[in-house]
Amino acid sequence: MNIRKYVYGIDLGGTTTKMGLFTTDGNLVEKWSIHTDSKQKGSNILDNIAASIIGNMKSHSLTAFDIQGAGIGVPGPVLDERYVIPCVNLNQWGGFDVAHELSRRIGTVVKVENDANLAALGEIWQGSAKGSQSLVFITLGTGVGGGIVMDNKIVSGKHGAGGEIGHMCVNHQSDRQCSCGNKGCLEQYASASGLVRSTLEALTQSDCPSSLRGISPLNAKVIFDHAKMNDDLSTQMVDQFSDSLGKAMAMVCCVCDPEVIIIGGGVSAAGHYLLDKVKTSFLRHAFPGCLNVKFRLAKLRNDAGIYGGAKLVLL
Amino acid sequence: MNIRKYVYGIDLGGTTTKMGLFTTDGNLVEKWSIHTDSKQKGSNILDNIAASIIGNMKSHSLTAFDIQGAGIGVPGPVLDERYVIPCVNLNQWGGFDVAHELSRRIGTVVKVENDANLAALGEIWQGSAKGSQSLVFITLGTGVGGGIVMDNKIVSGKHGAGGEIGHMCVNHQSDRQCSCGNKGCLEQYASASGLVRSTLEALTQSDCPSSLRGISPLNAKVIFDHAKMNDDLSTQMVDQFSDSLGKAMAMVCCVCDPEVIIIGGGVSAAGHYLLDKVKTSFLRHAFPGCLNVKFRLAKLRNDAGIYGGAKLVLL
Repeated sequence: MNIRKYVYGIDLGGTTTKMGLFTTDGNLVEKWSIHTDSKQKGSNILDNIAASIIGNMKSHSLTAFDIQGAGIGVPGPVLDERYVIPCVNLNQWGGFDVAHELSRRIGTVVKVENDANLAALGEIWQGSAKGSQSLVFITLGTGVGGGIVMDNKIVSGKHGAGGEIGHMCVNHQSDRQCSCGNKGCLEQYASASGLVRSTLEALTQSDCPSSLRGISPLNAKVIFDHAKMNDDLSTQMVDQFSDSLGKAMAMVCCVCDPEVIIIGGGVSAAGHYLLDKVKTSFLRHAFPGCLNVKFRLAKLRNDAGIYGGAKLVLL
Repeated sequence: MNIRKYVYGIDLGGTTTKMGLFTTDGNLVEKWSIHTDSKQKGSNILDNIAASIIGNMKSHSLTAFDIQGAGIGVPGPVLDERYVIPCVNLNQWGGFDVAHELSRRIGTVVKVENDANLAALGEIWQGSAKGSQSLVFITLGTGVGGGIVMDNKIVSGKHGAGGEIGHMCVNHQSDRQCSCGNKGCLEQYASASGLVRSTLEALTQSDCPSSLRGISPLNAKVIFDHAKMNDDLSTQMVDQFSDSLGKAMAMVCCVCDPEVIIIGGGVSAAGHYLLDKVKTSFLRHAFPGCLNVKFRLAKLRNDAGIYGGAKLVLL
């Protein structure tokens, strides 16, 4: 009997598709990426991924019998690990059984999940929550993504909306419109774009001195850097940002009470300076039973998705 | 080989302990209850339960070989389906491995869980979420309890705080102190006592006419009844109550995206009048992906806990 020793992880993004060949015991053998062709509603996406995977198999002299399968993360909700709801970031690509279509092309088992959910799974498999059974993963970039793993299983939800933490309302009085159609979502406060927006509003609405004045364009890194240099307004903005996250995490813990909370994404480059502020806010708001939840920074960075894709096949 | 056809469900409450003998295919054979003796830190609780179970086995000519086990719900957090953190409502009874101690006395497998979590499990097994894979159960009584089941498994959490929805903060500006130590918890607004408190405040702070004036003592049923008779202030209060629940459910769905939300507990006697208002608020606040979640009233009422206890053993 053939022992299937390898597994592929794929992370389909709006501009780039990352791929990795892993051993089933969790070692990354090779990683690479290809351009995501989202033209024509992404009609070439699966052909391109399949060609790249088949090419990689050949280069390692692997056949379909050596491969346990491929797990692919996509930027949108997924039902039953197969059906992808059309993705806004991929010109509405989706609306069909992606697992079936990719499996047909590469000749192995394929499972599909939301990309943030797979990043969560990757972090619990080989990242900073390794050895834990449950985590909440939150990714702070242009938006706020989330993934939840309980008892080593992804909480993807009945409608693929499990872990959509960025769309929890943290301010019911807010008039900040979110892309989801609601107002006051966490994403409007705890994302890079939310931070810039809050900061521009604060700079306009007061004439208090700030080392940020005159810097254009502002971005999240600059604001964090000036906060670290003790600029008052920047510090206030970063505190507000962290506080909205801390409050949201306190609410999330009343729902699923994870072992670990991991913060990743571009903004998490602010490191322990950010993590400590979020934790401080969390401790002020959390249900007493959850005060011992561990806070960690993500470890796998851009590779979390491909790790999670590989692990999905092995579950 | 002996086929174990029966299972016991036990619901340990502050004043009464409910018990039920079930067939393993989900039929309630007999139910009864005994007084909960919480004196001396509840030192007689397990002896009394064991005596009652053993008496019931005798009356049905059952031996330990006929019984698959017993599942018991307790009013507090539980770790690993066995260790009970001391219960406030039972004079600090707990702090030990209840599964082991009860198992030793009755000679069968015993599993332990939080009572609201078991009520959730009961409703998904034989109640109004029968046939579903995931639900959020919320029980509206003196306080607000919650239980979550995902993929037919209870989300009890790393610290036993899974489903503690009553302690999600729904008003960060609030100065309403909760028993948990925090302020603005859902329980302070969406419980019977929260509703009475809000109503008394509203009656005191204005002199607007209301059919509630002069009624003493007020309770949740009276306020709902007057709202149903179109008293303005009562309607406002019930709307506020339902809105805090609808908003909280919208946040919960961004975390775990269940198939069904079930509302139970004493206040749920207000029926579809309440359910419709909660759903209306939910639809106004929910993440679009979750708009199709089903809202239902609990069906098993006071028996949900014993059903859940029995099912816990069968998982």
